[in-house]
Order: sequence, then C-alpha cells, then structure tokens
Amino acid sequence: MNSWNGLLKQYKDYLPISENTPGLSLNEGNTPLLKLDQLSQELGISLYVKIEGANPTGSFKDRGMVMAVAKAKEDGSDAIICASTGNTAAAAAAYGARAGLRCIIVIPKGKVALGKLAQAMIYGAEIFEIDGNFDEALRMVRNIAETEPIALVNSVNPYRLEGQKTAAFEVCDQLGKAPDVLAIPVGNAGNISAYWKGFKEYVNDGKRPQMRGFEAEGSAAIVQNRIIPNPETVATAIRIGNPASWHLAEEAVLESQGKMDFVTDEEILDAYQELAKKEGVFAEPASCASVAGVMKQVASGEIEKGSSVVAVLTGNGLKDPSTAMDNVLVKPRVVEADKEKFMEELKGCVSH
Amino acid sequence: MNSWNGLLKQYKDYLPISENTPGLSLNEGNTPLLKLDQLSQELGISLYVKIEGANPTGSFKDRGMVMAVAKAKEDGSDAIICASTGNTAAAAAAYGARAGLRCIIVIPKGKVALGKLAQAMIYGAEIFEIDGNFDEALRMVRNIAETEPIALVNSVNPYRLEGQKTAAFEVCDQLGKAPDVLAIPVGNAGNISAYWKGFKEYVNDGKRPQMRGFEAEGSAAIVQNRIIPNPETVATAIRIGNPASWHLAEEAVLESQGKMDFVTDEEILDAYQELAKKEGVFAEPASCASVAGVMKQVASGEIEKGSSVVAVLTGNGLKDPSTAMDNVLVKPRVVEADKEKFMEELKGCVSH
Repeated sequence: MNSWNGLLKQYKDYLPISENTPGLSLNEGNTPLLKLDQLSQELGISLYVKIEGANPTGSFKDRGMVMAVAKAKEDGSDAIICASTGNTAAAAAAYGARAGLRCIIVIPKGKVALGKLAQAMIYGAEIFEIDGNFDEALRMVRNIAETEPIALVNSVNPYRLEGQKTAAFEVCDQLGKAPDVLAIPVGNAGNISAYWKGFKEYVNDGKRPQMRGFEAEGSAAIVQNRIIPNPETVATAIRIGNPASWHLAEEAVLESQGKMDFVTDEEILDAYQELAKKEGVFAEPASCASVAGVMKQVASGEIEKGSSVVAVLTGNGLKDPSTAMDNVLVKPRVVEADKEKFMEELKGCVSH
Repeated sequence: MNSWNGLLKQYKDYLPISENTPGLSLNEGNTPLLKLDQLSQELGISLYVKIEGANPTGSFKDRGMVMAVAKAKEDGSDAIICASTGNTAAAAAAYGARAGLRCIIVIPKGKVALGKLAQAMIYGAEIFEIDGNFDEALRMVRNIAETEPIALVNSVNPYRLEGQKTAAFEVCDQLGKAPDVLAIPVGNAGNISAYWKGFKEYVNDGKRPQMRGFEAEGSAAIVQNRIIPNPETVATAIRIGNPASWHLAEEAVLESQGKMDFVTDEEILDAYQELAKKEGVFAEPASCASVAGVMKQVASGEIEKGSSVVAVLTGNGLKDPSTAMDNVLVKPRVVEADKEKFMEELKGCVSH
C-alpha cells in the first residue's frame, strides 16, 4: 500500500536534488483527488478537487517549502526567512523545525487568522510583525537575504516552484491523464505557474489542461493589470495586490489557452458552503475561489459541458475557523436533557 | 503512485461490506507514518507517529464514520445521530453530507473548541446543545436511536470499530511489521479497542504490539477504575469520564501485555510543544497524550530502549488553535518596516 515517503524521494528525477540534498520530509504530497458527485451532476462536468489541505501543515505550501528548506540546508544556511500572510509562514516554520534551522517570519501587522499565526508560533518560528502590508514585508526579507547568510524561502525562491509543480504530476497520475481544465486560486501567482511547469514537464504526448486562474475581486491585480495597494477579500490567503509570479502566471494562461479571471467574495463563500454541505469537503475560503470560478465559467459557457475539471483546494478549512463561524447560518439550538422535549424539538425542525 | 480510494475499497475483504454497501469515501485513511528523528535519538527508541490528523476532517474518527454512515445508508436510515465533544461530530457531519443523510448532533453546552463546532456547522449538521455533560448527551442519543428510524453513529455503533481497526493494518504495512509498542490516547476507549482488533486480524504469524493506552490525569476513569462525574483536562478530545468501550480497552491491554496509564496536562502540553518545535508536527493536544506517555514510560523503564514504538496522533493541531495560542511562549515582536532597525532587532534575539 503506502510506500509514500514525501516529494523529494518520490519525484527525485524531476527535482533539483543532488547527493548532498538532505532527505527532508514531513510526508507531504500524495494528497487526495476527490470526485465531487453532486456538484458534477449539477454542473454537467466531471469535477474533481485536489485537496491540498491534507498536506502536513494544511496547505499546498508544503510542496515548495520542503524543496526550498532542503536546499537552504544543503547550501549551509543556518536560518530561513520569509514574509507571509499565513500559510507560507506555517510551512516554513514546520520545515525549519524539522530541518533544525532557525526560522524568521515577517508578517503584516493584523489581518492574519488566529489558527495560522498560532501554527507558525507553535513550530517555534521567530515572528516579527511590521507596520506595513504584505508587499512591504516581502521587500524587506528580500533585502535581508541579499546581504545576510539567511535563505529567503518566499515564492521568489525558485526551489519553491520546483516543489510545487509536483502537484501537477500527482493530478496526472491520479486521473490517468491531464484534465481538460485546471482551476486554481491566484494570490501570489506562484502556484498556477508551478502547476503549468509541472504539466509541461510531465505531459509529453497527451493534451495539457487549460490553466484557469481565479483572483478575488478585491485583489485582482493580474485581471485588472495594475498593482492594488490595499487589497481586500475574505479569502485572506490570496489577498495580495502585487503578485510575485505575475508574469509566469500570465505565461501559463497564455500558453495553455486558459484565462485569468476573478470571483467575488460572495461567490467564494457560496462555493465554500456548497463544498461542505453537498460534498463533505471543508476548505479554506481562498481555496474555494477555484470552485467558485468553475461555477462561474460553466454558467458563462467558458467551460464546456462534459469537461473534466480539476479544481485545486489550496488549504484546509481548519486554517480559518472564524470565517466558518461567521458564515454558518444555523446556530446550535439549546434543549433540556430530556428525551421527549428533545424529540419535539427535532421533529419541529426542517431539515437543511 | 496513489491508487488510494478510501478505506471501504482498500480493505473491503476485512470489513462488513456487502454488494449493497454504498462506495462512500472522502479518501480517508492512508495517513502518514512519520519517523521522529530527534525524539527517537533523545529517547533511545525508534519512535514513529501515525498522523491521523491528515484524515479528511482532521481526525481518526473518519475511519469509523465512513463505515458507520455507509451502513446507515445501506440499512435505509435517512438520518444519523451522535453525541460528541467535537471530532466525532465533525466526522459524522462530513460523511452525512457526502452520503446525503440528515445529520443530528448532540453536544454538551460549552467546552467545545471553536474550530470543531464550526466544522460540524459548516457541513450542514443540525446541532443541539443540551444542558448536561457528554455522558448525558450519549444516553439521550442512544434512547432516540432505539425508538426512531435514526442511526446512532457514536462509538457504541459496532461499525465504528470496524472502520477504525484499519489504522492498525496501515501501521503494519507501512512499517513492514507490527511495532513493539503501540501508544495511544484514551478517551472513549474505542480507538485502542479498534487498533487491537486490527492487529489481531492482520498479524497472524509475527509478534503483535503491546497496547499502551494513556488517559489524561483528570479523566483517568479506567486507570482509577471509577466513573469520573466531572472530567477535566486541557485535552478536550479525551475529556470523558465514562468511556463507552471501557471493557474492550481493558481486554486489549490485558491480551497484549500492555498497560493503561495516565499523563498529566503538563506532560501533554510538553509533548505537544516538543512535537511541533523539534519535529514540525502539529497535533491536537489530546493526540499528544500518546507521545507524553511514551516519554513517561521510557523514563520509567517500562518501554525498553531500542524498542520500535508507534504513537498515534489522533487529531490535527488546527482543530484547537486556542490551546496553541495559550501555550506559545514567544509572542510576535512588532518592528518598523526599515531594514536596519529590523536587523538590529534580529541580531539581538536569542534563537529558541
């Protein structure tokens, strides 16, 4: 059965691994590709989700981070540094801990979900909050890594994309071929770029998928073709106004004959609840931009009926419990510990 | 690579599956077995963790729930019901959603971590809070299931243990044999019973492991051999004063020449932080009772040096972010967005 020992071992022939690269792993990768039965039927497509929240720290970031941290260790760094809104910080902290490297994380003050901040802290990362937004934090860590013996592990680190591309390999292996469409949330734009790199390396004979990226409306820098100084969206993990991999993402869309599009917060939250209530899948709000985008483009006819579509769910719903709480409509009902009263209450309820 | 399609398919020959059992799955099981390098060295044993938090809803409960809900659907129930402190509720709600069954959850008022409650709610479960503790909630759902066409999916449902035993199968397959010791948190005592059942069914020739169960000190009903009316522990998922599978758990310990023991909240929180900071593994506090117990029994000599030990981590750390926040010692430092000031601050810090 499970002979999985993490990405560096599984895909060593496709990754920049030398004999000196440490065998770092938290058993990342090998995440489920789940067919969504009810939504497939409703939309008239074959819809699958790649559940990246099953990774060790609960997001796709683990794929790139295991590669970046392994190379930092191989290159003799004794610390790693990054700027992050949350998921990157958690992944860096976990792999830093596993590798025995000091991990320094710079985040914008406020606006980071409790669970995410807690996670980096529990892994023992040293966390600094700066008075500024994500882009300013990113500028600072870039500057520091240029002059100090500290490895930058933000997505501008090329090893990150190398690790992340393995998700495309898995999609092909799990589906038996590439899907017609790959739908993916776009924040810093590294992941869409990595998937496309992965498909190009892995699919030589067959058809490669159209890459369809979805930004949140309030931070749709690429769609609007302008830097957004104060991005706003409920999908915090993609609330980024100046994506680091902007041009790679545009290339991916162009080369694959796909599209960069946006979805509203309302569409994201609707997809978030549909996924949970109809399929039993609880994904981080930002993740649901992909499924929301699929719904939008099926309705508009841009995704054809009958297509096979893989939507990437980038993070675990448990990453952001407060969004769940804010958007749950049915509150618990308080009843006495008495069977008859309970049954009265129960029979009076309308099933959701 | 990944041809995994969930437990009912993978282990159909070992499970009570008929031709009428629906192929229910959220791709549960196949969770990582991770070697803990640093803690193994420190303790002088080969220590592995079975990371059950990688399951679809973030805990081992998914294993039993997929089996129980599939049988409920096969038997014609149109609803499932359970009493739960959190993880069971989340699993029932997710599989209920996936199977298209109404899901009714009864919980004790208060004392359930935010993330857990949010999870069941987002999956669309109908949640009732009763003025009473867990044991009173359990009594009520048992009574209801006796007279109404509603399937009880608490751990007294025998299908739950059938599903849960598959974790023992995976441990054997991943390790290539059974370990010398299986260490596991004990709350309702279903999981230790299920693992032992699994080892007995799966290991015919080789040696079976000693089952070492660990209750929290404040809810150590089995160790103290008495019902605990008001159990108290930071490990909420095992805060149970009258375990449903009490006698099965005692049998497992007796037959395997293991031991039922307890650990303090301090030991649990210490293991919780050690796991995260030294190994990059973030598990729910209750999970860490197993690792805390291993540390305790290695120190006492009850677990021999050189043993191969698998400690079960029952749930994902993201299930309970507030415990993480309460126990993180280093708070974020706020600095100006200025490189020189940042470097001064950074160099002045002592690495953890």
